[in-house]
Order: sequence, then structure tokens, then C-alpha cells
Amino acid sequence: METITIKDIAKALNLSTSTVSRALRNSYEINPETKKLVMEYAERMNYRPNPIALSLKDSKSKSIGVIIPEIANHFFSQLINGIESIAYNLGYHVVIFQSHDSYEREVANTNYLVSRRVDGLLVSLASLTTNLVHFQELMEKGLPIVFLDRVPNDIETHKVVADNFTGSYEATEHLILSGRKRIAHLTSPIYLSITTERLAGYKKALEDYGIPFDESYVKYCLYGGKIEAENEAAIEEMLNLPEPPDAIFTASDRLTTGCMSVFQRKGIRVPEEIAIVGFTNISVAELLNPPLTTVMQPAMEMGQQAVELLIRLIEHPQKTDRFETRSLKTALTIRASSVGKTVV
Amino acid sequence: METITIKDIAKALNLSTSTVSRALRNSYEINPETKKLVMEYAERMNYRPNPIALSLKDSKSKSIGVIIPEIANHFFSQLINGIESIAYNLGYHVVIFQSHDSYEREVANTNYLVSRRVDGLLVSLASLTTNLVHFQELMEKGLPIVFLDRVPNDIETHKVVADNFTGSYEATEHLILSGRKRIAHLTSPIYLSITTERLAGYKKALEDYGIPFDESYVKYCLYGGKIEAENEAAIEEMLNLPEPPDAIFTASDRLTTGCMSVFQRKGIRVPEEIAIVGFTNISVAELLNPPLTTVMQPAMEMGQQAVELLIRLIEHPQKTDRFETRSLKTALTIRASSVGKTVV
Repeated sequence: METITIKDIAKALNLSTSTVSRALRNSYEINPETKKLVMEYAERMNYRPNPIALSLKDSKSKSIGVIIPEIANHFFSQLINGIESIAYNLGYHVVIFQSHDSYEREVANTNYLVSRRVDGLLVSLASLTTNLVHFQELMEKGLPIVFLDRVPNDIETHKVVADNFTGSYEATEHLILSGRKRIAHLTSPIYLSITTERLAGYKKALEDYGIPFDESYVKYCLYGGKIEAENEAAIEEMLNLPEPPDAIFTASDRLTTGCMSVFQRKGIRVPEEIAIVGFTNISVAELLNPPLTTVMQPAMEMGQQAVELLIRLIEHPQKTDRFETRSLKTALTIRASSVGKTVV
Repeated sequence: METITIKDIAKALNLSTSTVSRALRNSYEINPETKKLVMEYAERMNYRPNPIALSLKDSKSKSIGVIIPEIANHFFSQLINGIESIAYNLGYHVVIFQSHDSYEREVANTNYLVSRRVDGLLVSLASLTTNLVHFQELMEKGLPIVFLDRVPNDIETHKVVADNFTGSYEATEHLILSGRKRIAHLTSPIYLSITTERLAGYKKALEDYGIPFDESYVKYCLYGGKIEAENEAAIEEMLNLPEPPDAIFTASDRLTTGCMSVFQRKGIRVPEEIAIVGFTNISVAELLNPPLTTVMQPAMEMGQQAVELLIRLIEHPQKTDRFETRSLKTALTIRASSVGKTVV
């Protein structure tokens, strides 16, 4: 009896050899009907894969792809350390990619990781990503994806986030209770989940304390603080208002340090002239001048929980009856940058 | 005529199918004699690879593996941004791994990257790596590797480093010229290239200005500052000397901020009681209290030059007649932490 090859199957079914090969490997890239067609035909014809094909057959690579906006950010580097601390012990390699907040790079990274057959993805969305098709298609094909921090509303899967609303509420409340009246909010692009959640917490605190919300005190930075001029322009605009803010609540690492740099260059005294609270995981908050009041996210723990959820999806896909969104508590640490008098 | 398979070749030559397969792909993992044996036999027997094998045949993955100690360090994250800025435009994916300064993880990362068939590696050695066999073996098999920052003496390839000697000399000289007499040096493990180069610059400056070298003023931190207790113990020891230092030159990001934290906790005034200069690329040096004098490495440029050298090795291996070690200039920026009086 002659041996039937993948090429023969492809010819008989009018498919490409690559499609047949992937269908036989049960790849998520091939739709279920095609898989069924190929597998049934292969079985009927008594197809036997060769040893090399067999070595390719186990599609588990024991590796996880991580796509984050940038690694030069304490929040994300701590997140990755959390991911690696769990993954390494469970025998998974962690492959790290930066999107640099670019949609195109995020798509390119995703495609590359999939072509390298990672078992699953952990993603924090790029600030310029509004189209999610590249993730939706993969998930429909069965690739497990867990989102963390910057998560999409429109995709159903496990998500791990900080409790941005409460963190932001507490920061704003603290500024109000410290006697500040005109609290500005410098934040990321409006379509990011973290932006809307933090904005909502800020607004709710103002409302609860009877302070009217003023849109001119909120500035959105499209590049999240990575472009210094954008940062500076937003701060300038606020400082030039008829009633400039007496406090500023900044929504990220870069926006916070960028803001402090502008104040330093302009000789604006913190906290005497303006108080500042940063939503940031910067490691040297207490070494800054003045020491910085921060809302810290449990980045390490977020990474750990996200990778645990992902590995569960990879190893026991059938056991997932519903998806979770876990929201982890932030921590407000009050330092001199936001209180009435300087502490030197 | 019956088709000959890889299995048949393997059986005839008493090799594994995986060896035959890789030999036919001209993989660097197979030694030249075996390749010749396999290829000649395959040709004689009129072996023709199937289309799937063909698609695997082009061993170029257009991806570069990067292994660095840790990403939560401005120097390394800037290095990676330099690497990515060039690689992305030349169509290469950059796959990032952290060794966490562990030899075992560095070996595991290396093996994983090779199994995923990257075209080349960029490596900055883990601080606990003393055995280089995992890299030597790959290079002997033809995998291009370029080292940067923490480079091995015993491997001949392209290397890109900062001019650590001069950077360190200038920092020490600056402290001497500022009137400091007892200058301590807090540094990484002695067997790292950066440690010996920086130590040499420090010693030469002392010598040139007639200050005797005192071994008790030099402390090596095995974990490079990542373990706070180690950091703190080293500083304590120096402060408890009969003649404690009046200045400290720290050799890395972590050692520098760790040192400043200890001084802050102990209420030791900088620069009045002790001056500090850090060999660090920290982004907020001027926002610290006091603003920090730094020796900065051209991390972005180091990454760019290293990846250019690597891609040249990947794409034109025959054009490399000799290996280069490029040494890039550092920049000393003087701020309040090291000068006679505080600038507030």
C-alpha cells in the first residue's frame, strides 16, 4: 500500500499543504469545518505522519507572549516580574514585546508571537489601539489571551486590573481633605480603560465633596507623557487658566515625572503653589524633591494573577465556564508633595 | 521509483531523524562532517524534501533574541529601545528575555531562543555567570552573538561597551577636585567586565592625584544592589570604618538609589556629610533630593550599534574578517549631590 502524504491530502481536498498540515496539528488557525474535513479524510486514507511531523504535532511550546506598551516604566517592569515569577516555576518561557503604544507594532508583535506558536498571550493595550480585530480573530481560533491593566471592553476573556476607580477616588479625596480647591487631572488618551476608570473616580470624589467638575482642569495626553512637549503644553494650558489649579493628580509614571520636571524648570514650588499626587509605581518616590505622594498598583500581584489565569486557560480550556475580571486594590502613600507644608 | 524519506536517510546513516532534518536545513546545530555526510547521501539517493520541509528550510526567522539582566533598570530599557529602533526598521523582531542575574535562567533563555531559531543573540551577561560554555558552543556552531555592556573577555566576537574606565576616572576626579579625601566605591561582583573597568578608572584617578588606594573603601555587592540588605550592610560597614568615607561613587542604578535610601533613612545629609556620584541612567536624577550627579552611558546608541553589528553578522557572515570592540563615551553631569554646598 502506498503511503499517503500531506501533499496528496491537499490535492484531493483542494487545499494548500500548509492548511492541511496545520489542520492535522489541530491548529487554532484553521477553522473547525476544515479541520474536520482534513482529519476525516486523513483517517479514511490511513494517513500516518512522519516522525518530523510528529515532533511538530505537540503544539504546546511552553511559552507565553507578553505585549506591553513599554518596559521603561516601573509599573510594567514589575508586572513582568510578577508574570515571570509564576511562569518560570511552572515551566513556561516568557517572551516580552513592547508595542511602544503603537497599534501597528502591537499587531506586528501579535502576528510574530503567533507564528512562533506561543501557547497564549498576556496583553496590556497600546494607547493608540482602537481596533481589536487582531486579538478577536486569534481568540475565535482558540488562542488563550488574558488582558491586564489596559483592557478592552469588547472582548470577553479573563482580565486583571487595578481598582482604578477607588485609587483615583482616594487620591482626589486626599487632595480635597488637604484643603485643595482646584484639582486638575492629567491623564492618558480617553479611550483607554484606565483613563475612563480613573476619570470616573476623580469625578465622583469631586461630586461627593460638592466641588463642581470643570472640564478645563482635565487634559488628555495622546502619548501618555512620552512626548515631553505634549506633556508640557498640557500643563502650560492649565497653569494659564484664569484660575490655575492648586493641585494636580497625574495618571501615570511618565505624566507624573514629566509634570514634576516642568514645575522644577519653571520654579513652581511643590506643594506650596501646587500639590501633586501621582498614579505611579516609580521606585524612588520617597527620594524625590519633595517626596511624592503616590497611588501604587499591585503590579507584581496583577502579573501573577494574570499569568495564573492564562496558564489555566492553556492547560484546562474545558474547565473555563465563565470569564473573570479581577480588580486589585491600589495603595495611597501620602508624602510631602501633597500636604500643606514641606517635609525636608 | 520509491520516494526516500528523512527516516530512510536516518536509518541508513545511523543518525536520528532530527539530526538528519537539521543537517538538511544546514542548521548550525549540526557539525560540518555530519552535514556533509547527510547531504551527500541525500543527493545520491535523490532525496526531495516535501513542501512542508521546504517551508522550514529557510532558517532565517528575522528575529533577534536579547538577554539582559533585568528590564526594571533605565540603562537596560534604553539599551533595548536602541536595539528595537534599528531592528524594527530592518524588519527584525526583537524577543526580550531577563536573566534576573541568574546563570541558570541565562542558560534556559539561551536554549529557548535557540530552539525557536532566532537569527542571532544580543547578550549582557548575568552577574552570576562565570561559565560561558552555553554561548561558546552556539558560536562554534555558527550562531552570531554580540555582547554589550557586560561582556566576556574569553569570547571573540563584536562587543559594544561604554568607556567605563574613563567614566569612572572622571567621576572620581570630580569628587577629588570637589575637595573629597576619602572616596568609597560601591560596585557589582568583581568578575563582571564593568566592575573591573570601573574599578580601574577609580584607582587610576586616586593614583594620579596622590591619594592612596584603600581596599576597605571598596565594596562588591554580589546581587548588584537588588538585595536591599546586601546594599545596606555594605554601606554600614563603610560608615563604621574608623575614618568613614566623605564621598561615595556607586557603580549602578540600583546601588545608587539603594545608597540614597540608606542615607535618607539614617538622616545622613548629602552632600554635606557625604557626597555621591552614581554610574546610572536613572531618568529622574534631577528630580531627586538632592539632584544626583551622574555618569550616564549612551545606552540608546550602544543598543543601536550592537544590533547593527549583529545584523551585519547575520546577513553577511563572510564579510567579517575581524571582530570589533566599540567603546562609547560616557557623560558626567554634575548636580548638587556631589558639590560643596546644597543647591535647593
